[in-house]
Order: sequence, then structure tokens, then C-alpha cells
Amino acid sequence: MIKKLTDGKTGFSLNVSGMNIQDSELDALNAKFAAAHEEMKKIEAGEVKNIDEQRQVTHFTDRITYTTSELFKQVETFVEDIRTGKVLGSTGKKIEFAVINGIGGSALGPQLANFAVNGPYWNELSSEKRNGYLKIYFTDNTDTAGVADVLSAIDLEASLILSISKSGGTQETKNNLTAFEALYREMDLDFAKHACAITMEGSKLDEYSKAAGWLKVFPMPESIGGRTSETSIVGHLPAALAGIDFKAMLDGACYMDEWTRNSDVSENPSYLLASMWYIAGNGKGEKNMIIVPYSDRLVLMSRYLQQLVMESIGKEFDRDGNPVHQGLNVFGNKGGTDAHAFIQQLNDGKNDFFITFIEVLKDAMDIPIEDGIYMGDYLHGFEGGLATALMNKGRQVIKMEIDEVNAFNLGMIIALYERSVAFYAELINVNAFHQPGVEAYKKASKEIIDLLHSVIAKLPELSGSEGTAAELAEKAGLQDKAEDFEGIIAKFAENIRENNPVSREWSEKANSYIYKIA
Amino acid sequence: MIKKLTDGKTGFSLNVSGMNIQDSELDALNAKFAAAHEEMKKIEAGEVKNIDEQRQVTHFTDRITYTTSELFKQVETFVEDIRTGKVLGSTGKKIEFAVINGIGGSALGPQLANFAVNGPYWNELSSEKRNGYLKIYFTDNTDTAGVADVLSAIDLEASLILSISKSGGTQETKNNLTAFEALYREMDLDFAKHACAITMEGSKLDEYSKAAGWLKVFPMPESIGGRTSETSIVGHLPAALAGIDFKAMLDGACYMDEWTRNSDVSENPSYLLASMWYIAGNGKGEKNMIIVPYSDRLVLMSRYLQQLVMESIGKEFDRDGNPVHQGLNVFGNKGGTDAHAFIQQLNDGKNDFFITFIEVLKDAMDIPIEDGIYMGDYLHGFEGGLATALMNKGRQVIKMEIDEVNAFNLGMIIALYERSVAFYAELINVNAFHQPGVEAYKKASKEIIDLLHSVIAKLPELSGSEGTAAELAEKAGLQDKAEDFEGIIAKFAENIRENNPVSREWSEKANSYIYKIA
Repeated sequence: MIKKLTDGKTGFSLNVSGMNIQDSELDALNAKFAAAHEEMKKIEAGEVKNIDEQRQVTHFTDRITYTTSELFKQVETFVEDIRTGKVLGSTGKKIEFAVINGIGGSALGPQLANFAVNGPYWNELSSEKRNGYLKIYFTDNTDTAGVADVLSAIDLEASLILSISKSGGTQETKNNLTAFEALYREMDLDFAKHACAITMEGSKLDEYSKAAGWLKVFPMPESIGGRTSETSIVGHLPAALAGIDFKAMLDGACYMDEWTRNSDVSENPSYLLASMWYIAGNGKGEKNMIIVPYSDRLVLMSRYLQQLVMESIGKEFDRDGNPVHQGLNVFGNKGGTDAHAFIQQLNDGKNDFFITFIEVLKDAMDIPIEDGIYMGDYLHGFEGGLATALMNKGRQVIKMEIDEVNAFNLGMIIALYERSVAFYAELINVNAFHQPGVEAYKKASKEIIDLLHSVIAKLPELSGSEGTAAELAEKAGLQDKAEDFEGIIAKFAENIRENNPVSREWSEKANSYIYKIA
Repeated sequence: MIKKLTDGKTGFSLNVSGMNIQDSELDALNAKFAAAHEEMKKIEAGEVKNIDEQRQVTHFTDRITYTTSELFKQVETFVEDIRTGKVLGSTGKKIEFAVINGIGGSALGPQLANFAVNGPYWNELSSEKRNGYLKIYFTDNTDTAGVADVLSAIDLEASLILSISKSGGTQETKNNLTAFEALYREMDLDFAKHACAITMEGSKLDEYSKAAGWLKVFPMPESIGGRTSETSIVGHLPAALAGIDFKAMLDGACYMDEWTRNSDVSENPSYLLASMWYIAGNGKGEKNMIIVPYSDRLVLMSRYLQQLVMESIGKEFDRDGNPVHQGLNVFGNKGGTDAHAFIQQLNDGKNDFFITFIEVLKDAMDIPIEDGIYMGDYLHGFEGGLATALMNKGRQVIKMEIDEVNAFNLGMIIALYERSVAFYAELINVNAFHQPGVEAYKKASKEIIDLLHSVIAKLPELSGSEGTAAELAEKAGLQDKAEDFEGIIAKFAENIRENNPVSREWSEKANSYIYKIA
């Protein structure tokens, strides 16, 4: 059986011998593999493979031509103009800070790339060491602390605020945008001179930003989903602002794409990887996928793959409408560190996982430790030792190797997993490209926001009232939503805001908070 | 049934109503709870509760008196001397940078605390904004990239290297120490004037550092394990260097300890939490524990708890020697961000988890969004919306609330989970305080390091040889370790080092790397 696939040109290899899976298990799936491969071809042929959302899926193909496109050039020119000071902030300052405002698929890829290629201390380097490229910050939530923290580090006069939202309506991203617009307004600065966006043409954000005369608004194709957008403009602009060679990343992705178009599972690392997941978890995700790169720079890999895999695979229904409740849990951080955190459980506890190691062969620097052994050798030894220990206990191990952490290799890994996920989805017959479960969440969230509006509207008539949350809810006629009501007025009470009449104090006697509406 | 426990003094609450667990399920465990509570009392009474390692377990009790101890004062004085420039680096520079050199339990707590209290951009603040406290860096692995990255940001002349290893023999920490010692030596700087340590008295590190005349060597008690050491000196010194009010953290921990000494499960948040884990997972960890703080500052919480829970609970044998293969998987990042990453699977996919939300009531700043609704209200709405959506689908939800992210509240949460883990371990009858599974890993790693030495010793006789790794392994008489041999010479070949004779080239013909030994 094929145990290890190696590409000598790049130094990439995938070794599945530690999965302890038999040829016969793979052979038994041949018909399934062949059928899945046909579907994979349809994706790249432009069929409407995301049937639920009635759209094509073009992340594998768009990247072939992207680097020679007009859009690619526009992005590079825009960044060069900023880097060299041709485009300055509204008060004439050179732009030094980029705030990447986006969530989920609009943040995880850029975060992964920036951390992997530029390292954790990029922002602490001098402008010279950064070669004029920007310091990078993320607002990837709707948390006031996240905004406050970014503000503590940046100078708004020297900042570029890049909002990324495919639909243009992502509430979290909109909220951060609202915050930054207000901050610029308060300082009497022209926000438009600091703002750019990536969004679908015709979206609200597209219309809004163009009308406001932002520096630039870049289009994002509808046919690329957030979680597979790192090799599109969504990955490009943030990477370029940080001086990352995005063309190299796409070259790596396309190189892996070429390799992984092979129909033969035993020669195709994406298919081989997906088949391991399938067999290990009985096609039902019965084993968790633990991702442990032996590399400080790749610590965000598991978080990136967590989204890519879980959002793609975690589905209630298969494509024939049968309830299947699929899923594939992904977690992990980095080795050897995780060995001092949770491998006690992996080695001794529940055998409910398979683990993927990613080794980086080239050391970042030579650090001799003793007798010709270098620090990097120890890292190698710890990875090998953990693999051996786990396999001796009947645990399953996948090993991947790259020669170094760079944009090209990162592109390879991203493309590898993107195709593995799509192929695995074919094996289990789910649509990998939609996310219907998020709708229920959005709807429930909207109900609470609506309730917030109702509570605010009721506050004047509650003026002078005092009581437990339940009592006040009843007074407001919201007793059927008492728990949500309490959550809301607790939030109001704990924050001092303009015209906020709500306060609370704990009463030992009532064993409850007593709320007062002024 | 008790659904929500609230502490009015601190604003902390725990709400388990979303677990949908019946009173009868709790009642059925009453005898078990009572027995576990007796064991918990023994821990604090000083019994040798870590039977396998024949030691007491004192992290709950030592922190009661720590803040009034001589050691506490020494730490505070040491830090104040550095902050104010009374102690300077070897060339007279003010110390500005602290490198915390430790792994696992010696890093995760300090990382959590620094990120939570000081935020992600602490190192980017001016010395004035940091009030003279140090910028904080971690070498929490044995990765050359990690060392190189720290070096890109710090000035060795203005750095303090703090090595933390309880046993004093942790290889990763030792390697980083070796690296820094060499770097100082190369610059002709007196390393001793930049070095301090935390380790057990009498350990090799203790002897070594004292003999070398380091600035300070602080003792660490044997009876506190790494994963429960954040409220000991291991948490103290890094926190103090970063200006974190460690006394407040301990006050929070002790406050929670007081509360959670209550024998009544329905009044004790630690016991209640552990009982939820137990019932949800049938006492076998059948459900994953997903930790989602709605707070950018608490994004490391899941990683901290991953170690605390998985290393404590993931055990092969119970205390009677029966094989049980226990475990409790922990993962998660932060909300609302995770809703755009993996909640598609949580909502629609496998129902194999319970989720814990941690809400922070006080906003970091007022950011009005629309019609009296603030950004913080949206975050609240998203948390409530997700909870509702998940519960509507029969998923289980725990909600926690704190008023704000600060040292006191962090201490509360740490103490809460420490006791929950210990209590849960009693319920399932495992020793929560040892980590025997790590030994097998250490042994296997040592074998690879030994093999590295053997390979280095064999290289001279292989001089002039050329062939596949397997061929060379045979030539070296190491054919029974051919795979490990290949891993090692691949590592050698990809790194240019002094006197390293190994190189490799890919051969299409052989479909293999051909190694050359010069």
C-alpha cells in the first residue's frame, strides 16, 4: 500500500502509514472514490455544485488566473501606493497601520497567513524592518474590548480600515465599521481617505462605500465562500499590506491543485487524506481530527482548519434530504507544546481521535545544544517520539512535512485541505459549501436584538419601578421572555451610558438582583 | 431545581438551565457527591492525594497564605527593582523585555493572564503606558522559529530571561536556556545579570542557576503541579513583571475557593459544573466540552482549560487499577467569532458536545450602533441567540457571567475550574494530579534523540556513501529503525550546519530522495 506521498520538487510529503489502515479498506471504497472524483471534476467544470444556494464553486479554478488578472494588479498597485506613501492619510501622514475588519472566513485566513509568514511580533518591528509594509490588526468580532485594544495601539491618522464582508451585511463587521467611522468623525478626520472594502458588487457595503468615496472598493466573487476565500482577494489584500508574497501563495495552491486532480487516491494527497478521515471515523466523523504542527508559526492552522472542516462537513441533512448529523471535530495548537498540555489524554485516555503532525524541516536558526545535536533536532525527536508513543498505544497518526514555513507552502497546505474537505463531502454526500445552521442562529440573535429594542421602548413607562428582573418583565408585559429580559437589563445595568436609566443592586434578602429604572 | 447560582458581591453567575438536566439525575448521584466531597476535604487537609507520585496537593490551600508570605514580598520587590531601574542589565540598560521561558503549565497560565488583563497589544505600548512594566515574550516550545521571532523583537541588553521548570529538567526549557546563554556569550554580555528562575529547591536548574549567580532563583513547591500552578509563584512573577495585580487574582481565587467548599452541589458552582460534565457525558466524557468566552481578551481560556481538564482527566486506569480510558475533550476560541467558524456543525451536525459561554457584562467602551443599541448589546444578543438556537436543537448550554475581565475575576474562574476538575476526578475515581501517559512519550522521544546521536556517530563511516534513506540505514546497521533514520537524515539534509555532511536530491527515477554523505 502507498504509505507516503512525496513531492521532491517542493519537499512536501504526506505519510499515512501511522493510520494503520489496510489496503482492503481502501479498495472497498473504490467505487465511492470514483464517483466522488467525477463530482470533483464537475466543481471545476463550473457546475452549480452548491445546489442549496444555487451557485458555482470557483475557489479551485479562479486562482489559476487570478495572479494575471487586472484585479490582482489593482491590489498590488494600491498596496504599493500606500507602502511608498503615494497615498497618504487624510492629514498627510504615511499609512502605518491596517485594521482588517472581518469575521470568520474574512479573518481566519489572513490571520493564519500573517502569523505564519511574518510571525507573532511583526507589529513590533520598525517600519524599516517591515520594508514600509503595514502593521496588521484585526477586528474579528463585535467586542468593544477588541476595538479598544486596537485603538490603544494604532494612530487613526495613519491607519487604513479594510472592511471585508462578502454579503456586505455581516453585522459584526458593520458594527466595527460604525465604530471606526464615528471615531474618525469625532477627530474631524475624513474617514473615506482611510477606508477600503472587499465585498460583492451590488452589496449594501459596495453601494455605501462607493457613494462615500472610499479609497478603494474591491469586488469579491459570489462563487467563493468565506471559508475558502483565502486564495482570493480576501486573502490577497491583507497579505499584500503585510508584505506577504501572495503570488507565491497562489503558486503553491495551484501546484497542489495540479497534483490533487489525479483520480488515483493512492497518488493524490487530498484524496488520500480524505479517505483516511473517512475510514478512521466510519464515514461519520467518529474520531476527532487533532492538528498539531510542530511549528510556532503554524499555531493558527488548527483554528483555520476548524472552520474549513467543521463548517463544511457539519451538516444535518445529506444531499438527498436524509438526516445524517455529520461532523468532524477539529482542534489542536502546536507541538511540542501540546505534549505538555493534552497528550496525557491522547496517550492514555479515550481513543477518539486521529492526529495530524506537520513538521517543518528547515530550522529558522542554528542553535547547537550538545554533541552535534541542534534545537531543531529536538523538535524533530519530540514529534517522532510522540508519534511512536501514540502508535504503540493503537492511536492513529498522519504525518506531513514541508521544508519551511513560507507563502508557497502555506498555499499548498490550504489547497490540500480545501480539496480534501470537498472530496470528503462527496464521500458522505453532503453539500460542503453552504451553512444553513447559521441561519437559525442569526434568526434567534435577531429576536434578542428586537427584544432589546422593545425593552428600550418600554423603559420610559417603567420609570420609577423597582424589583427583580422577573417582576419588571411582568410589568413590561414581557413575562414570556423573562430570562432574555433579565439578560438585557443586566447588560444595561452594568454599563454607564447616556440616558441609561437602569441600575441594579444585589439583595441578600431576596437572593436576587433588584433592578431600578430611574 | 437550582438553575442559576449568582454571587451578588462579584457579579459572577453560573447558569446550567440550558443543560436540560433533571433534578432526579442529580439526586441519583447524591451518595457519589457526598463521597467525593469527603475526598475534596482530604486534599485541603494535606493528605497524600496524588498517590501515584506520593505527594500532597496544595494549590487550593497554599494560595490562602501566599500573598502574606516572605516569598510574595521578595517577588514584588524584585519586580519593583526592575521596573524602577534599581536593577539594570549587564551593560546598564533598563530592563524592558521579559522572556518567559517555560512550557505547558509554566506558560499557559501566564499567557492567559497577560492576554486577559493586558490585552493583545501590550508589547506595542510605550514604556510610559506600561508604567515601566516589561514587555512580555514567551518561548514555550523548542522551536528555533520561536526563538528567532523573540530575538527579532527584543534587545538582549535590556532583557530578563525567566526560566520556569518545576523539575528543572524540562528539555524544551533547557534548550531555550542554552540558546539564550549562547546568545549572551556571543555578545560578551554577562548572562547571569539577565537571568532568573523558578524551580524546585535542589533541582538541577536550582543548583545551576545559583552556582552561576543569577539575579534571583525562586523556589516552587513540589506539591503544586504545573497545570494548577497559575496561582502560585509560577503565575506570580510573570504577572508581576507585566504589572498585573496578582494579589487581586489570588483574592478572586480564594473567594471562589471559599464559595466552593460548600458540600451542597446545588449551592457550589464547582460541584454543579462538574456534575453537569458528569451527567452530560455519562461519567465517560462522551460529550466534548466547548469553551466559548464572548470576549476577545479571553480567547486563551479554552487552551488553558484544555490542559487543566485533559491532562487531569485523560487517564488509562482508575485509582483501583481498572482500565477506564477516561477523557474530556476541550476546545473553543471566542464568541461571537466562533459562530462564523464552527457553529454550523454544532447546530446541525453531531450532538457530541456541551458548550460553555462566558459573558462579560461591562463593555470596554461605549460604542453606540443604532437607536440606543450599543456594540456590547450586539455581542450579548449574539450569545443569547446562539444559546437559544442550540437549545432549540437539543444541544446543551452552560452560561457563565462575570462583570468584567480583570485579575480578580480571572482568579475566580481559574479556581472554579480547578475545583471542578478535582471533584469530577473524584466522581470518576481517577487521580487528577499525575500524568503517567507523558512518560511513554518522553521515553520514545529519548530513543529518537539517542538514535540521533548514533546517526551522528555513524556519519564518518558513511562518508562517500550515496543512496536512499533505506539503503543508508542498512549500511549503517540501522535497518530496523529505517523510518526514524530517514526522518533524522532528512532533517540533517535540509539544514546547513557546521560539519554537516548530509545532503539530498530528489530522483524522479528512483521516486525517492537520494542522500549523499560527504
